[in-house]
Amino acid sequence: MSDIKILTGPEVAKHNGRDSCWIIVHGKVYDVTDFLDEHPGGSRIILKYAGQDATEAYEPIHPPDAITTNLPVEKHLGAIDASTVAKAVKEVTAEETARQAALAARPPLENVLNMHDFEVVAKAVIPAKAWAYYSSGSDDEITIRENRTAFQRVWFRPRILRDVSVVDWSTTILGQKSSLPLYISATALGKLGHPDGELCITRAAAKHGVIQMIATLASCSFDDILNAQANGQTFFLQLYVNRDREITRRYVQHAEARGVKGLFITVDAPQLGRREKDMRMKQVDDDAGAEVQKGQAGVKKDQGVARAISSFIDPSLSWKDIPWFQSITSMPIILKGIATAEDAVLAYEAGVRGIVLSNHGGRQLDTARSGIEILVEVVAALRAKGYHPDPRFEIYVDGGVRRASDVLKALALGAKAVGVGRAFLYAFCAYGDAGVERAIQIFRDEFEMNMRLLGVRTLDELRPEMVDASALNQHIVSVPRDNLFEQTYQPLQITKLKL
Amino acid sequence: MSDIKILTGPEVAKHNGRDSCWIIVHGKVYDVTDFLDEHPGGSRIILKYAGQDATEAYEPIHPPDAITTNLPVEKHLGAIDASTVAKAVKEVTAEETARQAALAARPPLENVLNMHDFEVVAKAVIPAKAWAYYSSGSDDEITIRENRTAFQRVWFRPRILRDVSVVDWSTTILGQKSSLPLYISATALGKLGHPDGELCITRAAAKHGVIQMIATLASCSFDDILNAQANGQTFFLQLYVNRDREITRRYVQHAEARGVKGLFITVDAPQLGRREKDMRMKQVDDDAGAEVQKGQAGVKKDQGVARAISSFIDPSLSWKDIPWFQSITSMPIILKGIATAEDAVLAYEAGVRGIVLSNHGGRQLDTARSGIEILVEVVAALRAKGYHPDPRFEIYVDGGVRRASDVLKALALGAKAVGVGRAFLYAFCAYGDAGVERAIQIFRDEFEMNMRLLGVRTLDELRPEMVDASALNQHIVSVPRDNLFEQTYQPLQITKLKL
Amino acid sequence: MSDIKILTGPEVAKHNGRDSCWIIVHGKVYDVTDFLDEHPGGSRIILKYAGQDATEAYEPIHPPDAITTNLPVEKHLGAIDASTVAKAVKEVTAEETARQAALAARPPLENVLNMHDFEVVAKAVIPAKAWAYYSSGSDDEITIRENRTAFQRVWFRPRILRDVSVVDWSTTILGQKSSLPLYISATALGKLGHPDGELCITRAAAKHGVIQMIATLASCSFDDILNAQANGQTFFLQLYVNRDREITRRYVQHAEARGVKGLFITVDAPQLGRREKDMRMKQVDDDAGAEVQKGQAGVKKDQGVARAISSFIDPSLSWKDIPWFQSITSMPIILKGIATAEDAVLAYEAGVRGIVLSNHGGRQLDTARSGIEILVEVVAALRAKGYHPDPRFEIYVDGGVRRASDVLKALALGAKAVGVGRAFLYAFCAYGDAGVERAIQIFRDEFEMNMRLLGVRTLDELRPEMVDASALNQHIVSVPRDNLFEQTYQPLQITKLKL
Amino acid sequence: MSDIKILTGPEVAKHNGRDSCWIIVHGKVYDVTDFLDEHPGGSRIILKYAGQDATEAYEPIHPPDAITTNLPVEKHLGAIDASTVAKAVKEVTAEETARQAALAARPPLENVLNMHDFEVVAKAVIPAKAWAYYSSGSDDEITIRENRTAFQRVWFRPRILRDVSVVDWSTTILGQKSSLPLYISATALGKLGHPDGELCITRAAAKHGVIQMIATLASCSFDDILNAQANGQTFFLQLYVNRDREITRRYVQHAEARGVKGLFITVDAPQLGRREKDMRMKQVDDDAGAEVQKGQAGVKKDQGVARAISSFIDPSLSWKDIPWFQSITSMPIILKGIATAEDAVLAYEAGVRGIVLSNHGGRQLDTARSGIEILVEVVAALRAKGYHPDPRFEIYVDGGVRRASDVLKALALGAKAVGVGRAFLYAFCAYGDAGVERAIQIFRDEFEMNMRLLGVRTLDELRPEMVDASALNQHIVSVPRDNLFEQTYQPLQITKLKL
Repeated sequence: MSDIKILTGPEVAKHNGRDSCWIIVHGKVYDVTDFLDEHPGGSRIILKYAGQDATEAYEPIHPPDAITTNLPVEKHLGAIDASTVAKAVKEVTAEETARQAALAARPPLENVLNMHDFEVVAKAVIPAKAWAYYSSGSDDEITIRENRTAFQRVWFRPRILRDVSVVDWSTTILGQKSSLPLYISATALGKLGHPDGELCITRAAAKHGVIQMIATLASCSFDDILNAQANGQTFFLQLYVNRDREITRRYVQHAEARGVKGLFITVDAPQLGRREKDMRMKQVDDDAGAEVQKGQAGVKKDQGVARAISSFIDPSLSWKDIPWFQSITSMPIILKGIATAEDAVLAYEAGVRGIVLSNHGGRQLDTARSGIEILVEVVAALRAKGYHPDPRFEIYVDGGVRRASDVLKALALGAKAVGVGRAFLYAFCAYGDAGVERAIQIFRDEFEMNMRLLGVRTLDELRPEMVDASALNQHIVSVPRDNLFEQTYQPLQITKLKL
Repeated sequence: MSDIKILTGPEVAKHNGRDSCWIIVHGKVYDVTDFLDEHPGGSRIILKYAGQDATEAYEPIHPPDAITTNLPVEKHLGAIDASTVAKAVKEVTAEETARQAALAARPPLENVLNMHDFEVVAKAVIPAKAWAYYSSGSDDEITIRENRTAFQRVWFRPRILRDVSVVDWSTTILGQKSSLPLYISATALGKLGHPDGELCITRAAAKHGVIQMIATLASCSFDDILNAQANGQTFFLQLYVNRDREITRRYVQHAEARGVKGLFITVDAPQLGRREKDMRMKQVDDDAGAEVQKGQAGVKKDQGVARAISSFIDPSLSWKDIPWFQSITSMPIILKGIATAEDAVLAYEAGVRGIVLSNHGGRQLDTARSGIEILVEVVAALRAKGYHPDPRFEIYVDGGVRRASDVLKALALGAKAVGVGRAFLYAFCAYGDAGVERAIQIFRDEFEMNMRLLGVRTLDELRPEMVDASALNQHIVSVPRDNLFEQTYQPLQITKLKL
Repeated sequence: MSDIKILTGPEVAKHNGRDSCWIIVHGKVYDVTDFLDEHPGGSRIILKYAGQDATEAYEPIHPPDAITTNLPVEKHLGAIDASTVAKAVKEVTAEETARQAALAARPPLENVLNMHDFEVVAKAVIPAKAWAYYSSGSDDEITIRENRTAFQRVWFRPRILRDVSVVDWSTTILGQKSSLPLYISATALGKLGHPDGELCITRAAAKHGVIQMIATLASCSFDDILNAQANGQTFFLQLYVNRDREITRRYVQHAEARGVKGLFITVDAPQLGRREKDMRMKQVDDDAGAEVQKGQAGVKKDQGVARAISSFIDPSLSWKDIPWFQSITSMPIILKGIATAEDAVLAYEAGVRGIVLSNHGGRQLDTARSGIEILVEVVAALRAKGYHPDPRFEIYVDGGVRRASDVLKALALGAKAVGVGRAFLYAFCAYGDAGVERAIQIFRDEFEMNMRLLGVRTLDELRPEMVDASALNQHIVSVPRDNLFEQTYQPLQITKLKL
Repeated sequence: MSDIKILTGPEVAKHNGRDSCWIIVHGKVYDVTDFLDEHPGGSRIILKYAGQDATEAYEPIHPPDAITTNLPVEKHLGAIDASTVAKAVKEVTAEETARQAALAARPPLENVLNMHDFEVVAKAVIPAKAWAYYSSGSDDEITIRENRTAFQRVWFRPRILRDVSVVDWSTTILGQKSSLPLYISATALGKLGHPDGELCITRAAAKHGVIQMIATLASCSFDDILNAQANGQTFFLQLYVNRDREITRRYVQHAEARGVKGLFITVDAPQLGRREKDMRMKQVDDDAGAEVQKGQAGVKKDQGVARAISSFIDPSLSWKDIPWFQSITSMPIILKGIATAEDAVLAYEAGVRGIVLSNHGGRQLDTARSGIEILVEVVAALRAKGYHPDPRFEIYVDGGVRRASDVLKALALGAKAVGVGRAFLYAFCAYGDAGVERAIQIFRDEFEMNMRLLGVRTLDELRPEMVDASALNQHIVSVPRDNLFEQTYQPLQITKLKL
């Protein structure tokens, strides 16, 4: 419409402070002076680029339209004459050099045999701050590890001599077809670990008929992800509820309009947990951030990224809000983060379509129990009330899933499907789309093997008596060591070769 | 009959590809072009020797008649003129050099005091790929270790002041005399670890009156083993059921004809487990393989050795097949791989003569329970039905047995005998026949001592109340460590010498 | 009043033995010959400075008036002419040099994220003997570690969808306002670790509305602490009861007169425990000591510091003494060190105002249970008698508290507040007042987060069913390792990068 | 009587083989040709000194009169002319040099704070074979460690506010006064570790009013020990029953005649256990041995020391023999090695005066339960029958005792006293008599402290409810580690100093 004004580097460079702050993004100049205090990632990171080109820092963690959407049109000052901008000499840090070497040294994908292999590769090839953000749990990280070990306290009681020539691990989740009894759960800030972020999942999930849950705090914008979908691909949406319900209403209705098939409202995060690994990584404060989905803004100023990216979340969310959600959308509503039988019963009675038994990947309340442990009490309580089984109310579990056998244990105990987050996150951080595909393939192989070995042909044949979960609630037994005794006791030695 | 054609090395060397593939084995030339896709070990390993002498690779893992049996007579091209074959310069790898040094440095056999000593020697003296194949368990290898530790959760309640001057640990198994209350269980591919393979067991077992169970996937052929027997030696046969039941019928009836006294049908392996140690050992794909007992062929093409050697196994095997087995043989039929009380009851009711409570040495379904743990529930369930004790239905246990005390625990809890596999496998890998004999001797010494200390003179005097098995089902208790606390807590120190 | 006599260094130096022992403190000369055997810290440490200036050794562990109070006025010999005293050449030990370097290398306070961080800094920056004294537990130190791990056997059952916009963790303790549901518990000899000793706590506690419990064996004198108080600041007093009850009476009544709001009588220390870390630190005998609050003297001679500082404690203290305490003070009386339900009931019936369930920080009876474990049986027993809840009888717990989540667990199970000792001790040893303030801040952050995540807005909303304490009494499970197996079993390896 | 013949070195040197074997001991020459096969320590060790002076090898492990007692008088050939014997050049081994250095570097005795300290010093200063013999347990050494850890599964429930000014830990054992509620239990072959052997115990026990149990297999002769007694000192006798009951009769009656106050018949050793640490120590075969108390000979030939020293033990010993023992002695008879409630009841009904609940220090049946665990079931069973408490039937416990608190736990649960063996053995190996005295002193200090802290003034006040033994039978919980997870999980780190 209007003529685009052309600005020069020196001109922009003058506006390099809090009083007047201009930045260049994707060849355009913006006046962000008034936006400084509104920036979800804090003003500090913007001011670092005041008067300069911020594209490289902006790119990995914002969708292309974030700035144009959030900034009034009169702050769009014009285009920059690129030739007039001084090239920033980019310093390559030792960490970055090591990271590039690790990328080059990744094992071939066929050497990756399990989900842990993805994690060890990801750890080596992503920036330290991404690792700290992804891998951290809250407080002493008891729960994050409990999530894994809880599955190993459930033992199989496999049946034999059933014809298992053909086994089928496909299912439906909320009525949607899924080639696996799991969905890829929401994790935030994917571009910290891979330039394509969550799109890696979208593309791989499309190929293999797996459902992706989109995170409110994804690095890729909701629409970018939806635009990348294949025909008939199914998405769910994870929702952090905004203090400004109007923003939430628009966001939810937009998702429904674009065909999202399930709304997973996070109910275990009125505030984001203290994650000390993340906090130790001081620099995270300087240049990380989060794509807050369009319209989630309105947050308070600089208080560290962890809180900043979540400061819009409404801690007043309560059961009283559920009817409102039911009034604004016809998507099935699922409550994500149920941790007790009592709340599972309330959820059922509130008329939602399902619950996710979860401790938020060990990132919220430490020494909270694992989803698989909660499952046992939830199923018992629902059953006692006549609420289970009920095809209109599905139960999911997440946290610590690394093997198809974990999934089968959850299903045997009454879950409809499980959510898997970090495993896929690490898969794409390590190998992009191909990593996600490999992860799906490994799960598939494991489902085939484990179902045969369990003696079930379809998931319907899974029964509670196929597992022994009696040790589930023995969850932690501290063992103060007897140091004096151990220093004096001399362990038995095996025979030695004469080498 | 016919004149044998004499071929030369250069002539054979021309047929070095997939289109035409000749190989030399034991001085004979064969055209294996059409067999490539039928080879249980995959085509790749054959093609590596296309146009060359393959004897050295063939030898350790096939019986002498494997190739003549599987290949139509028209593909037997003739004899080779050895003088015309270029000697392959055999590269001695660093691994092989270290292995030879380790062989020379083996401790004298009398220094071997227990089964673990065999394992550590075997690990040093066998090829890495043999070790990977033998030692691997499935997935996270929880079950393979659980097998060992489960025995240590059973504690003795020994009785005193009984006259134990004379103790006798002999018994019968399926009515056959056995000098020990254990049989040597089937393990596959023995020649990977020792040139004589399973024959080491045969010869030592004969001397000491111990029963050997022959594996379908033994490296030595069934008939080679039987031919090596001493008078009156007892064998059992482990059976993987072929998709082609006719092959299985011939195999079983041949075994019965040759005097085998028990048919142990493996029921826990519709598909062989994912064993990651084995999978990590990439090269295994290149030159390992399996002696598939005569007539077990008919498998699919190259898909990795682990699957290839087992691809003939029929995943459709079911309870409905049991009467057929009973109709083709009068050998006692035992189901190997029962893992629940429910299936034990079904087995009894199906009229078989016994069951092996087993998780396949931790190589199939991970986090499956150990045999000794299953035993308790099985005996209780059978007893409740009036099925136990019953001399026509014997219960065996295998997995993790390393001590006579393990065996006594199983017998006290109701087993008739136990199967011991890896311990004897490692014994012959480390020391050949002499290793097996030493292993038997150690068991004998331990039985004498432990029976006296338990206060039992014969195995019949073992009683359930002689063990405390109340901790058996506490099988795993995860202990997420408190890393912060452990890094700050300073352990107590013992006094220091002034050196 | 009188002319002050001026003495010279050489004159003082003559009195350098047991027969005649003069010392200089703060510029004054004292004849301590007759006091040698009365010195709570033993005669040896005084004799080390006989004839010399003892100020530097005296200063950290005595209040300014200790010597004038304890020594008859005729032993105050006069002032010293400082110019005549030979300057002691102070040898700087390697330990001291390392300590100073560590002090300079302390991480910035904002890097301290939890209580363990204080401990690791304190360990580096305080003298080895202070560390030994503070950190030691009794015997095998099972209990000191159990205190920490016991909290981790209590798991949360958090509730969701409650409006937690506003959360409030303030409470009252004995009717006194407290900004946190914890008080800073008594720990002894604070100046061993920081020159300002317990005053660091006093000043920080004043700023943040936290209650300080003053220790009988504090390094700073009772009055010094009280004199440093801010308006309205609340103190409790921890009392070791003297064999001479008159001394105790005066001490208690003085405390009440100065406004102390609660009298915590220690009942678990008729004798101080054997603490081997402390005992290993031989030198502690040479120069440590304790400020025994004014009037607590009358102890026996040199028998090692640990006993010396506590030798005035009366082992005959019994239930019969309680009415006497009630007669001499109107402060609420609390019994500190209750370890069984039986004694909790007796305490209630004796009419005291509260109890502290405690094992004295793991420093008394080893393998005594943790306070949090005792809490469960105590609440059950009191409830069964109709004694709980009762606003006139409060229950506290101490030992092992490092996280706000620990506190919330105790409160959910029925405690009114918890005591935190070592964490604040280490905080001021590491950073002085600022450390204590940071510790309070961390607790505050954790309370906010954890209460929101638990779904409680005020402490009143905490309920027993919000925790699963069923594993609490599984306190120790020994795991004799299977050394042979572990030496032979080869752990699974993750994939390796080609670096 | 007779003239003593004088022989020369060269003369003796001719008799240096199996056909004619002479040795010199303490200046006398003996013809041991016919005794070779009777020697409890085997013929090999004698033949090593054939034709030479064997005194140095003989001395540490035989009483002075062993050879004269066992050898017919006609084999006493005469005296040796010492000047004619070639001095053996004694080679000092590297081990011996290190041992001597360790002896010189022992910490001062006051640095020894607990029983483990003795053990670490003993390990350093005694020959490797002595250490192997003393420290070894059977098989996997599960039980030897369980003995220690079992005590740590018993937790205290201490009482407070009882007047504990005076505490008294003296008691009676079998009616004999004992200054401690423990006796020093029998351990064999004391001279292997200290030249004075068991006499160190005798002398120290006399000073402190502690009872010593003399071992059948002590290095010092029974009479040497009795001759070293102080007035009124109490001894018990541990008895291995000989196949030749006449020998046993004489031995028992001699003991009674010399004033022994209790006969502890070992009932858990029809055969000595397989102890692999001992077996690994090959050389033990060459020069160790055992003082078999006068008249215990008559054993079979060379079959390894472990069996040789015990081959006289009668495996046919049974309940039927008890009346015979009761007929030959009026000493109270105690059965040592009871392991079940059933046998405890039988013992009571057989009219013996007491039982020792024991697993023989973890040296016999591995995975047998600990004495403290057995105690709980034994007391319950006896009580149910009305057999407990009964002053005529005392219950003792041994195995793993290292602390006075262990003893108090056993007494609270119903034991009259405990046996402590290895702790005192290591004490005298490390420091001779003074070590034993220090050990007694440490126990005394610990009894004083722990009784005060428990709230008991006399041992009679100990009650079962003062301990929580509910975890006792949770004895082992195996924890197969999750190796993949542990390799990928990155433990939390504490803050770092900038050093």
